[in-house]
Amino acid sequence: MSSVLATCSPFKLALVQLGNVTHDMHANLEHARTMILVAASRGADVVVLPECFNSPYGTSYFPQYAEPLSTSASVKMLSETAKEANVYIIGGSIPELAEDGSGAIYNTLTAYNPGGSIIGTHRKVHLFDIDVPGKICFKESETLTGGSWLTHIDTRYGKIGVGICYDMRFPEMAMIAARKGCMAMIYPGAFNTTTGPMHWELLQRARAVDNQIFVAACSPARDPDASYQAWGHSTIVGPSGNVLQTCEENETIIYAHIDPEEIKTIRTNIPLYEQRRFDIYGDVSKTVDIKEGKGFKRE
Amino acid sequence: MSSVLATCSPFKLALVQLGNVTHDMHANLEHARTMILVAASRGADVVVLPECFNSPYGTSYFPQYAEPLSTSASVKMLSETAKEANVYIIGGSIPELAEDGSGAIYNTLTAYNPGGSIIGTHRKVHLFDIDVPGKICFKESETLTGGSWLTHIDTRYGKIGVGICYDMRFPEMAMIAARKGCMAMIYPGAFNTTTGPMHWELLQRARAVDNQIFVAACSPARDPDASYQAWGHSTIVGPSGNVLQTCEENETIIYAHIDPEEIKTIRTNIPLYEQRRFDIYGDVSKTVDIKEGKGFKRE
Repeated sequence: MSSVLATCSPFKLALVQLGNVTHDMHANLEHARTMILVAASRGADVVVLPECFNSPYGTSYFPQYAEPLSTSASVKMLSETAKEANVYIIGGSIPELAEDGSGAIYNTLTAYNPGGSIIGTHRKVHLFDIDVPGKICFKESETLTGGSWLTHIDTRYGKIGVGICYDMRFPEMAMIAARKGCMAMIYPGAFNTTTGPMHWELLQRARAVDNQIFVAACSPARDPDASYQAWGHSTIVGPSGNVLQTCEENETIIYAHIDPEEIKTIRTNIPLYEQRRFDIYGDVSKTVDIKEGKGFKRE
Repeated sequence: MSSVLATCSPFKLALVQLGNVTHDMHANLEHARTMILVAASRGADVVVLPECFNSPYGTSYFPQYAEPLSTSASVKMLSETAKEANVYIIGGSIPELAEDGSGAIYNTLTAYNPGGSIIGTHRKVHLFDIDVPGKICFKESETLTGGSWLTHIDTRYGKIGVGICYDMRFPEMAMIAARKGCMAMIYPGAFNTTTGPMHWELLQRARAVDNQIFVAACSPARDPDASYQAWGHSTIVGPSGNVLQTCEENETIIYAHIDPEEIKTIRTNIPLYEQRRFDIYGDVSKTVDIKEGKGFKRE
């Protein structure tokens, strides 16, 4: 792992806790573009948007707003803005319509380099199907299909693993990313006012402390009029499980300096990477092959 | 998993945050016995002792106090006290001298049923070798050997997985235990005043929320005169990652009602056990075979 991290370098991370997501996709894109430019003007090298940033979040909305990536106005905006602002963009997620005629809809993250090229595509793997009686019932699977690969993005600063929201509850994704050399896991996500206070920060700190990587989760701002009440509280956690930056539920941008030296220090002090007992239990990172921003199904 | 949990039943758990651990092993045993009887008199069904409860904790002490289990005064006391108090005992840990003539010393947990029989033996798998400059440097591997199996204990209330202290940092143990039907992970452990405030509670809550099981960690009380300053703060966490009971650093006993219904509820509301994507990444619980209180090395 050390050799992989040796090629990492520090960067400034920005999470845009986007507000004012309306039913007008083009207005949403214009507002997201503006906020990316603000983050870039303040020195961000990597800018993250929240889950479902171009449309309201809800099972009835996904089919309505789904676009094929090849003709997506959202992809076009993100690509152009990455180039204009000269930043990497981890473009939250958008509802994606499959181009294979199947009609499948995915909750999809696209990532861009400062040249405006797509460098990774992640379809939310674990669909958010929960039912906490009297509090929240939500079934993404009513209209969405789950992805079938894991995604690690190559940047000039090092590799970054990505997941979307509910993916955060499944520790394997972060374990695999960290063991394959990612310095961070970044999750655009929209927890809600039930699951947010219970688990949002805990899950991020858990992924960080167990894998000794940075973890960030970027939420939409809360809209009191929306059918889905997002938790907000976008957060960046250091590789010792320490919260570096967080916020409340309103629109804002949070920033943190991501320094791979912090990873090296904690892994030297508490050398988990030399202490795991793969003679007793298996290494889950050996069960999946990740290539070029896409993982391939295991054998 | 539901079928396994269907056979579980509620019990009262007690963690004895034992104080007054002296250089006199027989005095330590007598004090531990007294505290177990106190917990039993208050209705505990399962009583847990801390790591290294019969002797001071330190690499120079392990060889000095190590006993073969077959002739151990500590094992004798625990067996007799389980029977006398009519409780299960998860007997913290003691330095164990191998009986094979190798001279190997292990940090070993023994567990007893109310008949006084040993029902599980766990040798700490992950040795505590850390170096946080200026704060704490400790190398168990200077005098200890790591165990080579995972341990799940069968009780009349259901199966319980066990680990010792630093084992808590390695998520695979709890993932395997939960997926093989354990309702709880119990860790006797002695974090210190550096790692305790950083990670003690976070790691327990992480294991609980990711696996939807109860988690408990039982520390020694802090002895201001000891070379190793234990963190204390013995804690019991519910299957949603919620702290049920905790304490400060002084000698005390904490109790909690462990109800498998809470596990069923959270797993119904947030059904992780049906949502994992083992078509994409492997299931670590399939890499190890656990039998009769001992796991066997994987192929």
